[in-house]
Amino acid sequence: MASELYSKEKTLELRRELIGSSCRLFFSEDPVKIVRAGGQYLFDEEGRRYLDCISNVAHVGHCHPVVAEAAAVQMKLQNTNTRFLHDNLVHYAKRLSETLPKKLCVFFFVNSGSEANDLALRLARQYTKHEDVVVLEHAYHGHLTSLIDISPYKFQNLEGQKEWVHVAPLPDTYRGRYREDHDDPATAYANDLKDVIDEAHKRNRKIAAVFVESLPSVAGQIVPPAGYFQKVAEHVHSAGGVFVADEIQVGFGRVGKHFWAFQLQGEHFAPDIVTMGKPIGNGHPLSCVATTKEIADAFAETGVEYFNTFGGNPVSCAIGLAVLDVIEKESLRENATQVGNYLMELLREQKVKHPIIGDVRGVGLFVGVDLIKDQEQKTPATEEAELLVERLKQEFIVLSTDGPGRNVVKFKPPLCFTACDAKFVVEKMDAILTDSSISYLGNSTENTQDRPPPKPVHSVSV
Amino acid sequence: MASELYSKEKTLELRRELIGSSCRLFFSEDPVKIVRAGGQYLFDEEGRRYLDCISNVAHVGHCHPVVAEAAAVQMKLQNTNTRFLHDNLVHYAKRLSETLPKKLCVFFFVNSGSEANDLALRLARQYTKHEDVVVLEHAYHGHLTSLIDISPYKFQNLEGQKEWVHVAPLPDTYRGRYREDHDDPATAYANDLKDVIDEAHKRNRKIAAVFVESLPSVAGQIVPPAGYFQKVAEHVHSAGGVFVADEIQVGFGRVGKHFWAFQLQGEHFAPDIVTMGKPIGNGHPLSCVATTKEIADAFAETGVEYFNTFGGNPVSCAIGLAVLDVIEKESLRENATQVGNYLMELLREQKVKHPIIGDVRGVGLFVGVDLIKDQEQKTPATEEAELLVERLKQEFIVLSTDGPGRNVVKFKPPLCFTACDAKFVVEKMDAILTDSSISYLGNSTENTQDRPPPKPVHSVSV
Repeated sequence: MASELYSKEKTLELRRELIGSSCRLFFSEDPVKIVRAGGQYLFDEEGRRYLDCISNVAHVGHCHPVVAEAAAVQMKLQNTNTRFLHDNLVHYAKRLSETLPKKLCVFFFVNSGSEANDLALRLARQYTKHEDVVVLEHAYHGHLTSLIDISPYKFQNLEGQKEWVHVAPLPDTYRGRYREDHDDPATAYANDLKDVIDEAHKRNRKIAAVFVESLPSVAGQIVPPAGYFQKVAEHVHSAGGVFVADEIQVGFGRVGKHFWAFQLQGEHFAPDIVTMGKPIGNGHPLSCVATTKEIADAFAETGVEYFNTFGGNPVSCAIGLAVLDVIEKESLRENATQVGNYLMELLREQKVKHPIIGDVRGVGLFVGVDLIKDQEQKTPATEEAELLVERLKQEFIVLSTDGPGRNVVKFKPPLCFTACDAKFVVEKMDAILTDSSISYLGNSTENTQDRPPPKPVHSVSV
Repeated sequence: MASELYSKEKTLELRRELIGSSCRLFFSEDPVKIVRAGGQYLFDEEGRRYLDCISNVAHVGHCHPVVAEAAAVQMKLQNTNTRFLHDNLVHYAKRLSETLPKKLCVFFFVNSGSEANDLALRLARQYTKHEDVVVLEHAYHGHLTSLIDISPYKFQNLEGQKEWVHVAPLPDTYRGRYREDHDDPATAYANDLKDVIDEAHKRNRKIAAVFVESLPSVAGQIVPPAGYFQKVAEHVHSAGGVFVADEIQVGFGRVGKHFWAFQLQGEHFAPDIVTMGKPIGNGHPLSCVATTKEIADAFAETGVEYFNTFGGNPVSCAIGLAVLDVIEKESLRENATQVGNYLMELLREQKVKHPIIGDVRGVGLFVGVDLIKDQEQKTPATEEAELLVERLKQEFIVLSTDGPGRNVVKFKPPLCFTACDAKFVVEKMDAILTDSSISYLGNSTENTQDRPPPKPVHSVSV
């Protein structure tokens, strides 16, 4: 097919006609049509180049030739299901096991992060014989029926909270109950989660699992205090449940110094289940659940087969292997650390200059810029964040917002993002924030009360 | 990667070590390692060629070059998500809409049949504001938490039946309550389903949907009597629910004379939701939900975004388009009809010869051979079916069994399967059935009571 079959207007018309309108477009007023991509760049139908600061799925760079070639070669060879033996499946599992704590030594391959989290839920329930799940405020774990139920970010606008779901405070040291000035926020937040478990126990509920994103993303690019997971795991284990680390957004070296974001919590911490997704196949539908032998064996003891038609097929595994190779050969973790640190340094310089920037946080190439209307209340600068993203789009930079107030500008670019790209974005942000319209919004705290409150947050940009 | 990285023994050892044992192998005593495939053939590590009679996923033939090329081209161009505009998404939706009744004009793209059925459940519930689901006996609709709940084939061995799930009799005219000699089995079975709805209503339950595989597969390659769906739809609509046709196994021209298997029910029948999977991408993880504007709009009215990270990406859609092209250009539907009819003719000749063959049924290249121990009770010849499949494997033919008694030998080959392949398989079957060991089992009805009953059926081979 030619790179453009329809005019942009026609594409948009057909999209509105044929695709469920629950499926939203970026920049819905004037969406972008992308016909070509490479590295950290996107090109529209008129050949205009956009700097992509948000496609964490295109982990090693859009259309990486090594990944494309691995797929092409295997697609010509064979692509049967996992009921036949194939080297790619076992070799890929072996390679992944080398990145993980030893106890996470059994693998299930599936097609999406949602499928991975749903399987994690099944594994946890089968192993513990319990039903309930503890999640964090504003969490998002996927689009399936079972996962909407454990995603406060979604269920608050749908059917509401199920009796088997329990929500613990977000360990947010910028806006939460225990902040940077607290002695031991990790313990304090973990104790809050224990209180949630205790409350559940009073109602005779039994905890199967806690699901935690290693770095909560839609909750506003949060970095939980180190040591929090260990203490949460203790409380959950005491309740007979398991600890599920959702690495779908942030795994595979995005945080730079570690391969997995849960490793930021401390050298020896190991979850009971790890779910992987988005970056794992650089855009190819592939995901994985890693767990312990005990949990996998309990699942097998039911005698019921788990068969996933496409999961772990030789093409998907060839792609997964190629992604691991590229991360290593191109030193992308080192790049994530260097460029991420540089980006945060530049953004912190901006924080001094622009009072609208309340916080710059993150690790590696997972960075959030929290925009506020006032220092004291840290009122989310929702409209300003939206306007900033819109203005950056005019400069051919793709960014987006997250967090319950939709005021956190989030960076999660392909890991080939450069220092030069970082400098370019921050300079543009500086210029826009210096410009009257946004700085007016940002500085005129006295006027904020006249403005309507932020619209309820319905969409999830992950 | 070389086509063989490990010896077969080492592959098997790593598989047992690293992959959840719930994920089963075909021929678990001596599994097959496949390193290359093409058309309807599989090749093992020693270059031995197997005739593949069961890979319905490899719909247009293993590793079809047109499909592989479409993937390779698009992977090098771009593979962003559906928040950006792209021609492939809308063009593919347009092409699919041309195969469907007009009212099915809105599309959601996902990554697996399970994701499709889960989304269908969410759509049905949102549209009807009801919760409950009616399914058929022995049905299998996927591996997700929500789908195990609506799959009697699975839940009977797990947590059991949920209060919101209702099971109606399988419209099986060979073994069921109303058989070929019945005046109007379609109406009779539909009335039974209405009784199930009425029973649910007595308990104040409200029906959101009926889920029916257009040709129930794991239930034993069943062909429901024509007119059944229309009457079921009437009953379900009267109850305020919707009709979901699960075409995951049997869509995309497998039945030959129609593109969709539900069209076998009658010219003017249109489900409210159709779910697609397996063959749609010839092995690539791709699936789709087609529905009406009213249902899609009701889903959008919640204001909650539906975002599927990989679903509908440009590579997946390029692959889906290529599959549609190949079905058409290679006249694969015509081939399915011709070869399927020929295969069934040959098998019916065998039925006359071998009393173990109780029934030969199917349409196009979806065919079941029901093996029985005796004509009167039609006792499933479970061990004989297993032995037949095992012996065929020794002849380098891959077949498998299905049905609650695991006695239905099922054919669902790639659509490039030839008359010559059909003749070859049936000749081998004839030879094996003529051989003493199986014919002894098949004919010695007086001995069957001494043998242990068939093992409980835990696995699902789909």
